[in-house]
Formats: sequence, structure tokens, C-alpha cells
Amino acid sequence: MKVLWLFAHPEQRSLNGALKDDGIAALRADGHEVRVSDLYAMKWNPVVDADDYGHDPADRLDVANHSREAYESGRLAPDIAAEHEKLDWADTVIIQFPLWWYGMPAILKGWFDRVFVKGFGYGVFDEATGRTLRYGEGRLAGKRAMVVLTVGAREHEMGPRGINGGLDAVLFPLQHGTLWYAGMSVLPPLLVAGANRFSPEQYAEAAGRLRERLSTLATTPPIPYRSQNGGDYDANLTLHPHLAPDREDLRIHEAG
Amino acid sequence: MKVLWLFAHPEQRSLNGALKDDGIAALRADGHEVRVSDLYAMKWNPVVDADDYGHDPADRLDVANHSREAYESGRLAPDIAAEHEKLDWADTVIIQFPLWWYGMPAILKGWFDRVFVKGFGYGVFDEATGRTLRYGEGRLAGKRAMVVLTVGAREHEMGPRGINGGLDAVLFPLQHGTLWYAGMSVLPPLLVAGANRFSPEQYAEAAGRLRERLSTLATTPPIPYRSQNGGDYDANLTLHPHLAPDREDLRIHEAG
Repeated sequence: MKVLWLFAHPEQRSLNGALKDDGIAALRADGHEVRVSDLYAMKWNPVVDADDYGHDPADRLDVANHSREAYESGRLAPDIAAEHEKLDWADTVIIQFPLWWYGMPAILKGWFDRVFVKGFGYGVFDEATGRTLRYGEGRLAGKRAMVVLTVGAREHEMGPRGINGGLDAVLFPLQHGTLWYAGMSVLPPLLVAGANRFSPEQYAEAAGRLRERLSTLATTPPIPYRSQNGGDYDANLTLHPHLAPDREDLRIHEAG
Repeated sequence: MKVLWLFAHPEQRSLNGALKDDGIAALRADGHEVRVSDLYAMKWNPVVDADDYGHDPADRLDVANHSREAYESGRLAPDIAAEHEKLDWADTVIIQFPLWWYGMPAILKGWFDRVFVKGFGYGVFDEATGRTLRYGEGRLAGKRAMVVLTVGAREHEMGPRGINGGLDAVLFPLQHGTLWYAGMSVLPPLLVAGANRFSPEQYAEAAGRLRERLSTLATTPPIPYRSQNGGDYDANLTLHPHLAPDREDLRIHEAG
């Protein structure tokens, strides 16, 4: 495999840093190639602005269309283009972060904001039919992705009826709305809970679970998200009423 | 009212910029005080790091505890302290942004990451009982918040069974997991959909809806999120089975 490991934590000497190092070592020991985008170490700029697209700030900025024009004409900022090259190279992407305010740290959110430009992450069309390719189709189709996250909360607080919202719901904007949207197959996430108070034994257990998940990356069945164009949604992109009837939880967007 | 208006868009000459200006003008015309945190204009730094807490980078950084120590000892970075002062001043907060990848633009996510430090946004305790104050209680209790967001998608795509996930689910990490977590009462959001292709008539309609919502900020009933300590959750912070039985959608966390 060719694995791109995205990492977003300000401290290498942390639980997250240790898991990253152990995980990458395990992949390499198994003969896989690994490249790392360590966003803090790279001093990644997470803020979309006109400079990303070589856009004259005297003219009104239209993020979607100016990003597409810059992408298609090769005028994207070099740091964005470098991430595209890594994504094109990889067949598998690991996204590792601590959950902050029920989402990604800003430096990682802004990796998606800046890298997934129009024409690359969205606004991808099938030339023959004009159909929009997203949610299971798109520029990144065929690649696999897995989220590795730490949370301070205990695991049951992230259960389906836990006060913080279920883990699948909290990750829906990333896993479904971003990764699956852009075409990637999303493996079930690896959750490391109670991360604020870890003993060495707990670390060993978590690192073991991570290595196990990394050893089965190629064979683990992805989350069976429904594809946009597979017939499950109507012309208004709403799930047909006979599928998961009367439900409004986010798991209705998974088949079976 | 004293309104803090958070704004996160890279282009003032945008639909978002126009709505912000019209909204602020309407509030001031009604005699309210308004302060603005225009994050792009401020060149807000959204990236949490050791500098935020005056922390020696030679020592391992513990974001939660070092943020709390810096907060309690008055050593937070001045740009964070300035936002605390605004929040303390305000009785109402508007959070306006375009939905990017089903979340906030990174510059805004990083406002919460950096400003809602431990002891301010979380990790707030009742001294008498030692009880953690969150989800309806906490440092910001008594203040009201409202999200104003634009999306490119059409409105029905953000419906309860729409492919993008329901609006309340997509906003759950912000509205419930951040604003309500920190104690604020959250009013229903104002959604401006189809924002990529707006006519002047559509703008007038959206601006009218915004002005209407601003004129009723003090009287609109908040989303009836359940409080953590009100008896609806068990000792594992899981919703009691007799409440919203057999459901796992995120609206189970609303009463009634």
C-alpha cells in the first residue's frame, strides 16, 4: 500500500504523537510506503484566501470558481499542489487527530478547506453525462480512508444515545460529507477514548488496536454509505421513503 | 442588547458580507450595541499552539491543562483574552459563516479551539458540589447564540433525510457540542440555501428573513436541548431509555 498519514496535533510528545510513530513504524515494517503530512510540523496554513488561487485581491473573490480555475490552470499555491500530489500517489489515507469541540482541529479542517478545491474535491463532473460525481464517485474514488481519533470523553459518552452525540454522527461531516463526498471508501474509525488519563497499559492496548487496524486496512469492509447516483435518493437528493422508513438518524445513509 | 457578531468569510463583497452589513445596521438602528469579530479582517490565527499559553516549547504541551493555567493566571495570548472580553460583554452572539465541508471555515473553528480554553469553555466546575457545569450550565450560561449560515446546496438537500444530513445534525457539533456545552442558549439557525446563485430578489428575501430574526432575538425560544444535570441522562451520560425511546437521531437531545 501507499499510505498518506495526515496528522494534526501540536505536541509530538503526546499520546497522539506516540500512536502516529508506532502506526507508521508498523506499516513500514509490513513493507508499505508511508508519507506523512504532519500539519503542525509543516506549519500548514489552514486559512482559505485569495493567495491560494493567485487571485488579485482587488477583484471580488469567488472561492468555488476561482479555486477551480486555479486548479485547472496549475496556478494553485504550491503547498496545496503538493498535497494533491500526495493524494494522487496514495491509495490509502489515515486522518489522525484529537477531537476538539466535536470536530477537527482548525489546522486539519483547513487542510480540507484548502486542498479539496472545486474540480478536485467537489464540482467533478462526468463529461459524457454531465452528472455530478460525488458521494461515492469522484476524483478520489478507489482510495480508502480511515479516521484515527482521540477523545477526552469516555467511550459510552460517544455512544448512539450518549450526550455528546454518537461517534458516527459527530464524524458524519468528515467521513460522509468530505471523504465519501470526494469518492473515498471510508473504513470504520478507530476511537481512542478517555485519552486525557492514559496509563502505560492503556497505551499498549490502544497501540495494539491501531496496529491491528493498520494490518487489515486493505481488507476491512468500508462503511456502506449509499452512493448518490445508485438509486437510493430521489431527484431532490432525499432518501426514498421505503428505505430506512420513518427514521431520521444519520445511519439511514448506510445501506443494509 | 449587546451583540457580538462573529464573521468568517474571506470576501467582504460577497453575499455573506452584504448580509453581515445589513444585519449589523438593522441591530444598530434598533438601538442595540454591536461589536464585530471579523476573523479574516482581523487576520485571526486559528491554530492552537504553545504560544497561546506562554508555554515553554521545550516542555511537553498539555493543551487542556496549560490552557487552564494560562487562563487562570492571566497569561493567555492577548488576542484570546480580547475575545473573552467581548464574550463577557455580550449578551447575544451571532455566528455567521459559509458552510464549508459541512462545518465551519477553519478560521472560525480555530476561534472556538483557541478562545474556549479549559476553565472558560469547558472544565468549569461548581465549587460547592464539584459538579462539572456543561450542556446548559457554565461560564457562558444566560447568553443567547444564533448561527447564520449560507450553503451552496438547495434547502431540501439539508432536510432530515437529505443526502447531506439534516441541518440540525450537521450543526450539532457547533450548536450542541460547543455553544450549548459552554452554557449558551441556542436559537434556531438561519439558513440561506442555494447561495451560489443568488438573484437580487433572492437577496432581498434572505436579508428580510435575517432582519426578522434579528428583531426577535430576545424573544425567540431557544432549541430545547436537554441539560446534562437535569435528570434526563443516566450516570453514564446516556439518555434514559424511556425518553425518545428506540431513537438514535440527534434530536433525542431536545426535550418535548
